[in-house]
Amino acid sequence: MIPAIDAARLIARLKALGDTGRDEAGRLCRLAATDADRVGRDLLCAWLGEAGLRIEIDRIGNIHGLWEPEGASGDPVVMGSHIDTVIDAGIYDGCYGVLSGLAVIEAMQQAGFRPSRPLAVVAYTNEEGVRYAPDMMGSLVAAGGLGTDEALATVGSDGTTLGVELACIGYAGTREPGFLRPHAYIELHIEQGPILEAEGTPIGAVENLQGISWQRITIAGMANHAGTTPMAMRRDAGVAAGRTLAFLDRLARETPGAVATVGTIRFEPNAINVIPSAAIFTVDLRNPDEERLKGQEIALDAFLKKLQGEGFEISTERLARFQPVAFAPEIVTAIEASAAERQLSCRRMTSGAGHDAQMIARIAPSAMIFVPSKGGISHNPAEHTDEADLVAGANVLLDVATKLSR
Amino acid sequence: MIPAIDAARLIARLKALGDTGRDEAGRLCRLAATDADRVGRDLLCAWLGEAGLRIEIDRIGNIHGLWEPEGASGDPVVMGSHIDTVIDAGIYDGCYGVLSGLAVIEAMQQAGFRPSRPLAVVAYTNEEGVRYAPDMMGSLVAAGGLGTDEALATVGSDGTTLGVELACIGYAGTREPGFLRPHAYIELHIEQGPILEAEGTPIGAVENLQGISWQRITIAGMANHAGTTPMAMRRDAGVAAGRTLAFLDRLARETPGAVATVGTIRFEPNAINVIPSAAIFTVDLRNPDEERLKGQEIALDAFLKKLQGEGFEISTERLARFQPVAFAPEIVTAIEASAAERQLSCRRMTSGAGHDAQMIARIAPSAMIFVPSKGGISHNPAEHTDEADLVAGANVLLDVATKLSR
Repeated sequence: MIPAIDAARLIARLKALGDTGRDEAGRLCRLAATDADRVGRDLLCAWLGEAGLRIEIDRIGNIHGLWEPEGASGDPVVMGSHIDTVIDAGIYDGCYGVLSGLAVIEAMQQAGFRPSRPLAVVAYTNEEGVRYAPDMMGSLVAAGGLGTDEALATVGSDGTTLGVELACIGYAGTREPGFLRPHAYIELHIEQGPILEAEGTPIGAVENLQGISWQRITIAGMANHAGTTPMAMRRDAGVAAGRTLAFLDRLARETPGAVATVGTIRFEPNAINVIPSAAIFTVDLRNPDEERLKGQEIALDAFLKKLQGEGFEISTERLARFQPVAFAPEIVTAIEASAAERQLSCRRMTSGAGHDAQMIARIAPSAMIFVPSKGGISHNPAEHTDEADLVAGANVLLDVATKLSR
Repeated sequence: MIPAIDAARLIARLKALGDTGRDEAGRLCRLAATDADRVGRDLLCAWLGEAGLRIEIDRIGNIHGLWEPEGASGDPVVMGSHIDTVIDAGIYDGCYGVLSGLAVIEAMQQAGFRPSRPLAVVAYTNEEGVRYAPDMMGSLVAAGGLGTDEALATVGSDGTTLGVELACIGYAGTREPGFLRPHAYIELHIEQGPILEAEGTPIGAVENLQGISWQRITIAGMANHAGTTPMAMRRDAGVAAGRTLAFLDRLARETPGAVATVGTIRFEPNAINVIPSAAIFTVDLRNPDEERLKGQEIALDAFLKKLQGEGFEISTERLARFQPVAFAPEIVTAIEASAAERQLSCRRMTSGAGHDAQMIARIAPSAMIFVPSKGGISHNPAEHTDEADLVAGANVLLDVATKLSR
C-alpha cells in the first residue's frame, strides 16, 4: 500500500484553484469555455506539467494528463471529473476529483510505484451545463453519445458558440474525443447530499446512479364559487393535484429504489373561496433501475388518464430525462475493500445527481467514491467538506487506482 | 293579488342609488358610515318620506320605514337588506332588497290594499363589514347578538370609531336596536352565485344558509434533496397536504350538504428538486347543518392529528366561522307558491353567502328570495341581473308580503 497522497498540497491546490475565476463580486464563476475557465485550465495544466504528465487536449476541450512510466502498457486507469463551475459555486464540486487524481499519480511517483498500466487524470469540459446544454457534455462526447462537431456548434445561453469559445481560450485541442479508452474510470466527488454526514460515514462506494424523470404537469378543471357549487358539479383541479401527489408517494413507497417528489405547486386563481381552475406542479421521479423508472412514469400517465376520464384536461411537459447507470461491481468492491483497509467506514450508495462517470460508464468499467458534504449543500459558496474527509477520500482513490493498475 | 310593483321606478331608483357614493375614479364605494354612505341614506330616506312612511333610525344607524295604515296592528312584516357597499361594488347587492321592499309598500298603497299588520322596510347598517368588523353588524345588533355600545365602539380599518362616524353623518338614531320585532322578515337579494342563471330559473326560495368554516393550515415537514432522500426518511409536507386535500374532498362527498374547498396553496421552498419543508393552504368548509359542519371540522382535526403522529408539525389558524341558519319553512313555502302563481319557475336553495336575514332569523321567522346573478359575479362592477328578473323577484316579494300581512 502506498502510504498516502500529499494532503497539504491537495488542500492548497483546491484553495488555489477555488481562488481563480472569481467575478467582481467575489463569486466563483468558471462557466465552461469562458476566460475564467481558461485561467483555471492553465493552472491545472501547469500542475500536470510539473508532475511530468503528458498533456493531451481533445477537440471538445477535455484535458488529459497521462503518466506512462516504463513497463506500463495497455489502456490507462483514468481518474477524473471537471473543473468548470456553476455561478457562485463552491470550490469542491468536480475540482476535488481532478486534483485528487493528480495527487494519486504524484503519490505513486513519489513511492516509486511501477504500474503495469498507464494512469491518467482527466478534466471534462462543461460538466455543469450552465452556459451550454446539455450538461456532462465533454464526457458525453468522449463516450460517443454526442457528435463532436454537433457539440462544438452548441449555442450558449449568452449567444456564443462553444467551438469558437474553446478556440478563443486556447483549448480547442486536436485529439479526437474518445482517443483514450479507459481500462477503468474512477471519479471521486463530494456527495452533494446529506447521507454520509448524517451517518458519520466518511466513504461512499457509489454503485449506481439514479435515472431522473422531470415533468411539469398542468391539471385544468373549472373555477367556481366555493359556497354555491355542489361537490357533484365540481371539477376541482386542486383536489385532482392532491390525489396525484398522494398517488405518487404511495407508488414510490411500493417501488424498490424509487423516490418521487412534487417540489413546486401553484393553484389558479388561488383564492380562498374559489375552486381552483388549474393546478400546476412539477414531478421529480428517480430510480436506479430504468425499467422501474419507466414503470413509475407509466403509472403516472395512467393515473393522469384516469383524471382525464373524470373531465380534467391534462398537459405534461418533459423537463429532463436521464437513464440510470449501474457502475462496475468489481470497482465498487475495490472501493469498499480499500476503505476497510484504511479503517474507514464505508456504505454503498446511489448517486442522486448526474456525473461524468455516468457517461464514461458507457465505454469503460466505472464507479464513484463519495465523501461527506456538510449539510448536503452544493452549488453554493457554503459547500464544504472537512479536510480529513477530503484526504481520506483521496487516499481511497489512491488505493483503488493502485489495485487497478498494479 | 296586487298586480305588480312599479318596475320602471324600481329600476330608476336602483340606478340613482348606484350613482351615489362614487369615488374620483368612478368606483361605487359606500362604505358604512362614510360621507358616501350618508348620501345614499339621505336618498333612501327621501324616497321613504315620499311614500308617507314613518322613518325611525335606531342607535346603530339602521333605517326603518314604517307603513301603519288604519286597521293594521301587531308586529310588522319586514322587508329589508342593506345599502352599504364594498369597494368598487355593483349596484344590486343589498340595495335591490331595500328598494324592492319600498316598491312593495308603494304597490300596496297604490292598490288600496288594507293589511291587518303594519309593513316595514329596513336598511341595516354595515352589512359588508369592509370598514368595521364584523359584517352584518346592524342586523346582528338588532337581533341582540352584539351589544349596541360595544358595536358603536368598534374601531375601523381606517382608525375611526363607528359611533362617532354615525353621529357625524347624522345617522346615530335614538331608538333602541331591536325596538321593532318583525312578525316575519323577507330579504330579496341577488344570488351572487351561478345556479339560477345556469338553470334558467328566475326565483330561488332560500330555505337555509350555509355555515362557513375557514382555516389556514400549515403542515411543516423537513426539506431535503429530492434525489438523495429515501422515501422512508422523508417528511414531505407537500404529500401530507395532498393527502389532506384528497381526504377533505372524499369527506365532503360523503357528508350530506357539505362542500369543501382548498382554494390556495403554497409550498416552501418551492424548488423542483427539494422535498417541501412546509405546505400552507386554506380550507373552506360549508354546510347548512351545524352538526354536520362541526363533524367536518372534527374529522379534519382528526386527520391532522394523524399526520402529527407521523412526525409533521401542524398549525391551524381560524379565519372565519359562521353557524348555518334554517329559514322559516312557512315563508319558504309561501315564496314557492307565489312564484308558481306568477308562473315563474322556482327552486329551493341554500345561500352560500352571509346575509342580514341570518341575523334576523334569530328573532323572527325569516327567509330569502334570490334572483339570478349573471355569471355568479358579485362585489364587482360587473354584477348584473336582467331587469325582467329584478322585476319578477320584486313581484314575488310583493305577493309573499301581501300574504303575510293580509
